[in-house]
Amino acid sequence: MVVKLTLEYDGTRFCGWQLQPNAPSVQGALERAVGIVLREPVRIVAAGRTDAGVHARGQVAAFRTARRPDLAALRRSLNALAGPDIAVVAADAAAEGFDPRRDARSRTYTYCILNRSAPSPFWRQRAWHVPFALDVDAMRAAAEILLGEHDFSSFRAADCTARHAVRRTFASALGRHGDVVRYEIEATGFVRHMVRNIVGTLVEVGRGALDVARFEALLAACDRRQAGPMAPACGLYLVRVRY
Amino acid sequence: MVVKLTLEYDGTRFCGWQLQPNAPSVQGALERAVGIVLREPVRIVAAGRTDAGVHARGQVAAFRTARRPDLAALRRSLNALAGPDIAVVAADAAAEGFDPRRDARSRTYTYCILNRSAPSPFWRQRAWHVPFALDVDAMRAAAEILLGEHDFSSFRAADCTARHAVRRTFASALGRHGDVVRYEIEATGFVRHMVRNIVGTLVEVGRGALDVARFEALLAACDRRQAGPMAPACGLYLVRVRY
Repeated sequence: MVVKLTLEYDGTRFCGWQLQPNAPSVQGALERAVGIVLREPVRIVAAGRTDAGVHARGQVAAFRTARRPDLAALRRSLNALAGPDIAVVAADAAAEGFDPRRDARSRTYTYCILNRSAPSPFWRQRAWHVPFALDVDAMRAAAEILLGEHDFSSFRAADCTARHAVRRTFASALGRHGDVVRYEIEATGFVRHMVRNIVGTLVEVGRGALDVARFEALLAACDRRQAGPMAPACGLYLVRVRY
Repeated sequence: MVVKLTLEYDGTRFCGWQLQPNAPSVQGALERAVGIVLREPVRIVAAGRTDAGVHARGQVAAFRTARRPDLAALRRSLNALAGPDIAVVAADAAAEGFDPRRDARSRTYTYCILNRSAPSPFWRQRAWHVPFALDVDAMRAAAEILLGEHDFSSFRAADCTARHAVRRTFASALGRHGDVVRYEIEATGFVRHMVRNIVGTLVEVGRGALDVARFEALLAACDRRQAGPMAPACGLYLVRVRY
């Protein structure tokens, strides 16, 4: 049986999704919990391997088991065992051969910026605190340039191992809701650190250090050195995976 | 000079607003921070003395000082010193004699219920997790009964020291936004534990243990024993004080 899990997690205290020998990972916490409940070692694969400090509101993961567990009971047991930073929102039976990573048609990330002078205890480790004024209209215009198919080499981490950086985006939108500026991007796939590098560069636009024409030119240049600094992990959320 | 502070805080790690000898209070943390910045002991008064675990998004507090501090610099210093659970959103000069408690015309509280099977790391200690189905229409109808002037004795804590329990509400509204059911109440004042007792009773209505007619009758009965259990502190937020 293949079990598909829909997950939320607060990434603050994790080294990321992926199992690491001496650091707490989301994968490790879940594999341990499933192992206790099913009394069977499992390997869990996720749609997106989120980095240290990155959160999830709709991560999808799956594992194969020789048993046929009651899925509602499994979900409750995992919520009791996986710790307070991880929630299993749903546990469903998936088709034989389901691969949450390869079968995903798109992934959606949001990035939250708290844009006001004072910090907020409610957004600590859950948004990037940007205390200076942001020109949200300019940022929105720059964000819209990223719609469609582009080579995202300018927003790609140096250690990215993907063959190329051409990706198609289905959404790239930015808006302000009170003190929070939220960027949402949906794409087939992402190169390493792509969303955080985009947001760091959008903030350069927002503070007036880059204009929208320069933003468009640096995307076309396919040169990481022309883009802005990488935004911190704590503002990033994997919110949805489509199949 | 009288300085008026607008505050946010996460109440989880505090014994409440009010200074206590051997427990961390919001008042104590702020008085210590102001004392360091102004090198002068101050006494800070708040509009609402929130209980242990109760949060604030718009608490108002004030203190008197013999100095004339730069208020923007004071705000920044307090945010650096008061700890990550407290944010000073604004620091303004207030009129001589301003009393945040007695001068308040109304206070608004919201109460957040996370209403779904699974818990959420993002709402932990910030909402009451109610995993069973709630009839939000019935809860909304009951909430609207509380509009206007009523004797709230049925929702009053046994140890409340107020002379009487007659209060006027300007808003008493409930709605669902995704998985979150949010109740908002604005009133001149509140008797002790009033909002949490109201919410505990609204949840009884929502799960079908009380109907709306019974809710109306138990309000009229002025008898605490007829109302539901008290909702936990972690879902409650002081959001606004009007002057």
